[in-house]
Amino acid sequence: MHVMIRPVAMGRPSFLGVPRCTTLELLDADVAILGIPFTTPDDLGQSRSPSSDAPDAVRGQSERLAGFLTHYDFDLGGSLFDGRKVSMVDCGDVWGEPGKFDDNNRLATVTVQAIRETGALPIVLGGDQAALPPALRAYTGHPSLCVVHIGAGLRWCDEVGGVHEGPRTAMRRASELPWVTSMIQVGLRGDGQARQQDVDDAVAFGSVLVRAEEVHQHGVDAVLRRVPRAEAYCISLDADGLDPAIAPGVALPAFGGLSYYEASNLLKGVAASGPVVGLALLGIVPSHDVNNLTSLLGARLILNALGELARAGRFDARVSAQSTVANLVGI
Amino acid sequence: MHVMIRPVAMGRPSFLGVPRCTTLELLDADVAILGIPFTTPDDLGQSRSPSSDAPDAVRGQSERLAGFLTHYDFDLGGSLFDGRKVSMVDCGDVWGEPGKFDDNNRLATVTVQAIRETGALPIVLGGDQAALPPALRAYTGHPSLCVVHIGAGLRWCDEVGGVHEGPRTAMRRASELPWVTSMIQVGLRGDGQARQQDVDDAVAFGSVLVRAEEVHQHGVDAVLRRVPRAEAYCISLDADGLDPAIAPGVALPAFGGLSYYEASNLLKGVAASGPVVGLALLGIVPSHDVNNLTSLLGARLILNALGELARAGRFDARVSAQSTVANLVGI
Amino acid sequence: MHVMIRPVAMGRPSFLGVPRCTTLELLDADVAILGIPFTTPDDLGQSRSPSSDAPDAVRGQSERLAGFLTHYDFDLGGSLFDGRKVSMVDCGDVWGEPGKFDDNNRLATVTVQAIRETGALPIVLGGDQAALPPALRAYTGHPSLCVVHIGAGLRWCDEVGGVHEGPRTAMRRASELPWVTSMIQVGLRGDGQARQQDVDDAVAFGSVLVRAEEVHQHGVDAVLRRVPRAEAYCISLDADGLDPAIAPGVALPAFGGLSYYEASNLLKGVAASGPVVGLALLGIVPSHDVNNLTSLLGARLILNALGELARAGRFDARVSAQSTVANLVGI
Amino acid sequence: MHVMIRPVAMGRPSFLGVPRCTTLELLDADVAILGIPFTTPDDLGQSRSPSSDAPDAVRGQSERLAGFLTHYDFDLGGSLFDGRKVSMVDCGDVWGEPGKFDDNNRLATVTVQAIRETGALPIVLGGDQAALPPALRAYTGHPSLCVVHIGAGLRWCDEVGGVHEGPRTAMRRASELPWVTSMIQVGLRGDGQARQQDVDDAVAFGSVLVRAEEVHQHGVDAVLRRVPRAEAYCISLDADGLDPAIAPGVALPAFGGLSYYEASNLLKGVAASGPVVGLALLGIVPSHDVNNLTSLLGARLILNALGELARAGRFDARVSAQSTVANLVGI
Amino acid sequence: MHVMIRPVAMGRPSFLGVPRCTTLELLDADVAILGIPFTTPDDLGQSRSPSSDAPDAVRGQSERLAGFLTHYDFDLGGSLFDGRKVSMVDCGDVWGEPGKFDDNNRLATVTVQAIRETGALPIVLGGDQAALPPALRAYTGHPSLCVVHIGAGLRWCDEVGGVHEGPRTAMRRASELPWVTSMIQVGLRGDGQARQQDVDDAVAFGSVLVRAEEVHQHGVDAVLRRVPRAEAYCISLDADGLDPAIAPGVALPAFGGLSYYEASNLLKGVAASGPVVGLALLGIVPSHDVNNLTSLLGARLILNALGELARAGRFDARVSAQSTVANLVGI
Amino acid sequence: MHVMIRPVAMGRPSFLGVPRCTTLELLDADVAILGIPFTTPDDLGQSRSPSSDAPDAVRGQSERLAGFLTHYDFDLGGSLFDGRKVSMVDCGDVWGEPGKFDDNNRLATVTVQAIRETGALPIVLGGDQAALPPALRAYTGHPSLCVVHIGAGLRWCDEVGGVHEGPRTAMRRASELPWVTSMIQVGLRGDGQARQQDVDDAVAFGSVLVRAEEVHQHGVDAVLRRVPRAEAYCISLDADGLDPAIAPGVALPAFGGLSYYEASNLLKGVAASGPVVGLALLGIVPSHDVNNLTSLLGARLILNALGELARAGRFDARVSAQSTVANLVGI
Repeated sequence: MHVMIRPVAMGRPSFLGVPRCTTLELLDADVAILGIPFTTPDDLGQSRSPSSDAPDAVRGQSERLAGFLTHYDFDLGGSLFDGRKVSMVDCGDVWGEPGKFDDNNRLATVTVQAIRETGALPIVLGGDQAALPPALRAYTGHPSLCVVHIGAGLRWCDEVGGVHEGPRTAMRRASELPWVTSMIQVGLRGDGQARQQDVDDAVAFGSVLVRAEEVHQHGVDAVLRRVPRAEAYCISLDADGLDPAIAPGVALPAFGGLSYYEASNLLKGVAASGPVVGLALLGIVPSHDVNNLTSLLGARLILNALGELARAGRFDARVSAQSTVANLVGI
Repeated sequence: MHVMIRPVAMGRPSFLGVPRCTTLELLDADVAILGIPFTTPDDLGQSRSPSSDAPDAVRGQSERLAGFLTHYDFDLGGSLFDGRKVSMVDCGDVWGEPGKFDDNNRLATVTVQAIRETGALPIVLGGDQAALPPALRAYTGHPSLCVVHIGAGLRWCDEVGGVHEGPRTAMRRASELPWVTSMIQVGLRGDGQARQQDVDDAVAFGSVLVRAEEVHQHGVDAVLRRVPRAEAYCISLDADGLDPAIAPGVALPAFGGLSYYEASNLLKGVAASGPVVGLALLGIVPSHDVNNLTSLLGARLILNALGELARAGRFDARVSAQSTVANLVGI
Repeated sequence: MHVMIRPVAMGRPSFLGVPRCTTLELLDADVAILGIPFTTPDDLGQSRSPSSDAPDAVRGQSERLAGFLTHYDFDLGGSLFDGRKVSMVDCGDVWGEPGKFDDNNRLATVTVQAIRETGALPIVLGGDQAALPPALRAYTGHPSLCVVHIGAGLRWCDEVGGVHEGPRTAMRRASELPWVTSMIQVGLRGDGQARQQDVDDAVAFGSVLVRAEEVHQHGVDAVLRRVPRAEAYCISLDADGLDPAIAPGVALPAFGGLSYYEASNLLKGVAASGPVVGLALLGIVPSHDVNNLTSLLGARLILNALGELARAGRFDARVSAQSTVANLVGI
Repeated sequence: MHVMIRPVAMGRPSFLGVPRCTTLELLDADVAILGIPFTTPDDLGQSRSPSSDAPDAVRGQSERLAGFLTHYDFDLGGSLFDGRKVSMVDCGDVWGEPGKFDDNNRLATVTVQAIRETGALPIVLGGDQAALPPALRAYTGHPSLCVVHIGAGLRWCDEVGGVHEGPRTAMRRASELPWVTSMIQVGLRGDGQARQQDVDDAVAFGSVLVRAEEVHQHGVDAVLRRVPRAEAYCISLDADGLDPAIAPGVALPAFGGLSYYEASNLLKGVAASGPVVGLALLGIVPSHDVNNLTSLLGARLILNALGELARAGRFDARVSAQSTVANLVGI
Repeated sequence: MHVMIRPVAMGRPSFLGVPRCTTLELLDADVAILGIPFTTPDDLGQSRSPSSDAPDAVRGQSERLAGFLTHYDFDLGGSLFDGRKVSMVDCGDVWGEPGKFDDNNRLATVTVQAIRETGALPIVLGGDQAALPPALRAYTGHPSLCVVHIGAGLRWCDEVGGVHEGPRTAMRRASELPWVTSMIQVGLRGDGQARQQDVDDAVAFGSVLVRAEEVHQHGVDAVLRRVPRAEAYCISLDADGLDPAIAPGVALPAFGGLSYYEASNLLKGVAASGPVVGLALLGIVPSHDVNNLTSLLGARLILNALGELARAGRFDARVSAQSTVANLVGI
Repeated sequence: MHVMIRPVAMGRPSFLGVPRCTTLELLDADVAILGIPFTTPDDLGQSRSPSSDAPDAVRGQSERLAGFLTHYDFDLGGSLFDGRKVSMVDCGDVWGEPGKFDDNNRLATVTVQAIRETGALPIVLGGDQAALPPALRAYTGHPSLCVVHIGAGLRWCDEVGGVHEGPRTAMRRASELPWVTSMIQVGLRGDGQARQQDVDDAVAFGSVLVRAEEVHQHGVDAVLRRVPRAEAYCISLDADGLDPAIAPGVALPAFGGLSYYEASNLLKGVAASGPVVGLALLGIVPSHDVNNLTSLLGARLILNALGELARAGRFDARVSAQSTVANLVGI
């Protein structure tokens, strides 16, 4: 099946400046970046301050880090991929049409599926939190998946104003997928975007709920010990899980969020402890940002996760076809 | 039929601070403000810098003019309504739901119809230019209507990317309504958002095309002589018809636009020469604005038109029920 | 006695969107919001970057939290008032006239008194720190009051440029009230806005001085053990007590301030340990703010304090007349 | 009598970088700059977006023009003073104290008087329009003065909210001075800040009212022919007389204002036609400005007036003591 | 000779999205865009607010116009090239090294020469006004060239602080080239960046000096009649020639500048009356800009000139090799 | 030898408002502020977002702290200099000329030397990190110096694009000076601006490398124990060593940096433990700053260091000539 994508335009930066994939048939890489900018808003008001600009904003900020890939990185203790040959490609955005929310979601799922079938690790750039369920639906048939979500809100509403596929219902929708067998939610605080019943349902499902203050008090290692054992992990990094002092560009800043090292060590800890099969960066609202700090932080945290995955041998299995790719996808 | 509206929220200003109508069944006024914030975007990219915030932005800026209604106004040569008793009410926005563009358009039409049935003059606050056709459809059965459009673009595309009800197709859609019998478009310049065939079609229809430079060279009176005779007029004021020096808050600033006095005198001239049955302010993009100048200008030009309409006796026919209204719709 | 107030204008948001009180004679609520925007400036230069806009800025940001009142809140472990019926009303601002600083102060005192006489808990939105003494004077006759002040500066000057009622003299003025029997000042750092003699006087009075660094080193529980025992507490939250990373909107940012959890736990600890009879949020300077972060934080911390007060049974004694109020004060 | 002033601080720019006068006793110059930043606000709300920062903003922008004084200027047809030796000094601001509006006004009058007694031409930097009457009171005993006011508003209210010395009452207050024998007001448009009676009173006094549109239609020369003959002229340049496209930094932008050349030629025409004994630049609101454009324009127009005054021989009579001054007033 | 250029980076937009030339050996087009961002500053202070960002800013804004090339344009009366096949390529920027001002200038000259040798029309994007002389030196051997300069300043200084190749000396340096036989400077006003002697020298050379006010008074046609006859024309469009209301992004805004239609008609008039062999857009300072208005205007005016050149048959002579180029220079 | 400096202009603030030195021959003070704004950029792109504005930005923000010098400071436990008489003077900036990078560096060295010869402690305000080596070269002949560098990057490149004296090579250049015998680098994280070989070389030299995370984990006291013993210390405070939450104004924000108290206690610890002979504040990029927070923080940290140096008796040895200085250097 041919899956249509919207490649990164020539006049716009790709993530870290890596090659642009213009058609998924040619994709042959270890890591594939994919934007899912358009999802279903809870209501019209929400559609006014969108995360739709976030994929391009993150790509733009990633350029500032692009020169450093072969440098020594003090947070990783070496170069990004530690000398390994890892190929990365930017697949642009999921194709979308105005108002066709269900179609757009379906297309997001098949696009992630198409990427996974090539063996590449999908890195999703949202878009808001509603981008998570379509992405997770691409893992159908996977024996057992644990979703590690970093974010301020519970996002276990069943529906909001009649919308079942919006940002506040994302984690409940995830829990309904048969292959999502466990879940941990880290950084909870403030308005949980949930009612008591939603909290009870999350607990009943077995979602491990960790408040931000617990992270500050007991440390990241204590949190890592509470991550459920699973055959594979999907990491969902919601920007509102981070503290507004370093991540102001979100819909509603929640004070008391995770610091850089807490988030980074959490990502690294998960990457080191089991196979990570997907990673999503969600909920950045560029128009609320200050000096693009949040987009820069998002790009940086993706690097940290990738570096740790490389060190954990995540990319060693695949026979890299990097040199071939360069010819096919152009500059 | 009950027509649902979204009244102005208590914590938000109404236009000029006039009473808020909470249900159209109670509407009894000479002038009714109505926002149409959500229309069909040409494409997803366009939906990122929306005019959806414009109705509230214009309402907010109108507050700065609200104290002046009984003052002497030098542009009108007296107080706003020249001593007449004219009642004005803000009906809030058309009800809309995410992605249901056709439904939203239909609801816009029936809302304007419901307002017209009460005898009130509808003043539409867009939203982008795509708000014009739904509003004009509310005049079905009207014997003969001339649309006076002030704007930089022709907007006579037949479709853009499959969208027939978007901002660039607005004037062609208007021309297809049987009751729209003539049209004049003033302020054309730069990219006409049209191809040669579209220009030819507009001319064939009989649309009087006036470039902005012609206005500067020959004056507003010469333009007014070219306005087609008609039984009634609808005025469509697209903010991009004005010069970017005073109206920077538009999707794409087109240099060389109309000055304040040119636009004001054009509005006044039309108001003085025939019955005006509708007025729309379209295409303001608040996120592109500078110090809210464009929204303030839009609010000011609506005042000028209203003042001239009052002087032309437009509101004398209706038996004003102002005192009653005040009781019903509350502050 | 009739006490004139300036109600929240119709086109402006009230705190959390609660009902607006238009005349204190009708006030019947558990919690009453009151702005004191205008106080005595130290000098003319200072009057140029005022906190006078802060009450409206805080009200505006509180709207973003207003939808959450019945949600589960992770910082409180339940809904805001934990299922209790607590009525809250926004009384607008103290009436003030330009330059009549003494009159304005006196009116602030009688307004807080009028609120207290109805049994409501006054929540004061400053204005700068000079709003504190007029508010505290409303507690005349109270047997014994401890002022818990969170802020960077000592504010124990006797006079500044001849002004005795300005922001830098606030805590000394408070100490001179017979019913203020004790005091704790938390978050001191940087320029103390005091000379050595002022520090000595504060210590001689018995004010417990806690530097911000001590809070970071020893934790909030250690601070709470140093809070003097008293029959009742007034909490004064000066925005400059918080760290500039999350509260940049103050007159002079002082680095090293309290984190969100430190401030929140401090407020909660006091609320849990004794009767709180007043709360003031002071010193926000909106024109110095970044993305309204400081106003949002101020609104959020008021919620935390209110939630804890509800849990401590603070509002259980009063017979709520909420339903009646709704009729009287309108929407 | 010793008149206290507030000299320009060492770390702040003086107007055009000219010497700073630290005490009026030493003043010996042809032109004296004086700021009147603090006047009586109409109401407290108005005191929040003040013109108090305008004198320093204009001084700051004037620095960008300071290098050019000996250059060839195309608008003047030569160097600023056309080779003449003209000394200019910056006297800083009138001394003011918070809330003592009457005292501050009185001090403004005696300061301008003290400057006039030295023979220097006072150039007043407001502050808002309320700075005009105190400045004009310094001309007591002058046989006959015509005030040339450029501005959008009539400013002939008798009182606003009980305030008789505020910005909207300025021109009526001016008309009540026995030595103000005539008046012309140019640039009127939009809200006149007046009621019908105020317009009638202005006309009855003999104030020549010229709408902005008349200037555009008939040209500056036609306006100059309507300037009353008088023994001397005071020019009052209110920034809202200019178009918001080039002067956005005012309290309420009024569209359709004077262009640069219209204002400049008006100033030059008056300067050329009779003795000018005072000049005031009023109503700039820096916090509403865009890139300091309005302050730069204000500084530029003062230069144009000064250049024309020099060419008209205005400074030839006085024996310049420039070299002496330099020693006395420091750098 | 191989001439090194700095091609437009993949992640950055080219002008109008046209193909990027990566090596001049392959250049085969009708029009070639070339940035000259780095020139010699007058002094270190000036190097802080540079025009160095202007080429990329103009390229970025040109993207907003890129969709329109085949549309009907009301300012041109048809599509951009009126149906002709005209090939355009973006050659990126002249290669430069920090501090090597003379070398950079020499490289600018040889790069323009290399472009001219291929038969392409060079369109230079500055950089400040100092980019003009190096560009003009590439026309060595040309029999007779007239420079048409639109700008506020005379720029005829001989040296400024020892610098002979800076922005204020540009027109004098141009006059010293043997092949520059005549010159017209339009839009002069305010500080001429010149002394009397410089004005005299310009007049002595025969430079036709036209003040901005003259353009407003007598119209563009009168100016066009004063353009010297010559075998070929180079147009230099300095952004400060335009009015700050539409072009605020310049080093020092000079009020009273040219309007859009004045500038556009001037460009068109020259393009229509004789062979144009070069065009430069200079002096945009993006950090002073408002909403990128100046860069958008600059891009728009280049379009207008190109459209008129196409209509004048300027590109008909060259045998277009467009299809071949597309293969060579990639996307 | 006469060493030319560029004194602080009269219309610009000096650091803390201290006297301005206009010629080094007259310098007689304990502490001398010196700006080194212009250094060698790595490449032309980098020269576009310069630290050249930093000295003036820091001076401007220091004004907000200037009133406090005799106040009680809670971070110091008394007034700034603890009652001692310490004289401070601002020497303005090193003289520089465009593009003459080597000459400018040499002049920076001789200027610091000239200051040191008077016995004053030089406080250098950069400029970027490339200002460090020229400053350190002024200590030639010093028996043994330890450089304490706080910053995110290693800055041990040997050259970048052929530039040996740029910001990324600064610490290697420092290590090559014979009198620099030891080094500690605190706050390392993210991109080290170094390759593996550079890290190895730094370790081989004996530079003590401390990652930011180690500071957070083990505390400042543990870091202070690792500071090498030396006869004297130069402190280099690179703004990117601090966390972007409080210091966003740097070239590339690196998350996870030092907090205010960590940096302050580090500075104090070094000041208390040995003779400090120089201090540099580097790498602030004002155009990236938010509300000037970074410049304010930089000024504040200099105060903390100075206060601690005074307490350590650093200024007791020199016979203060403060009163004399006042006469010589003017106001």
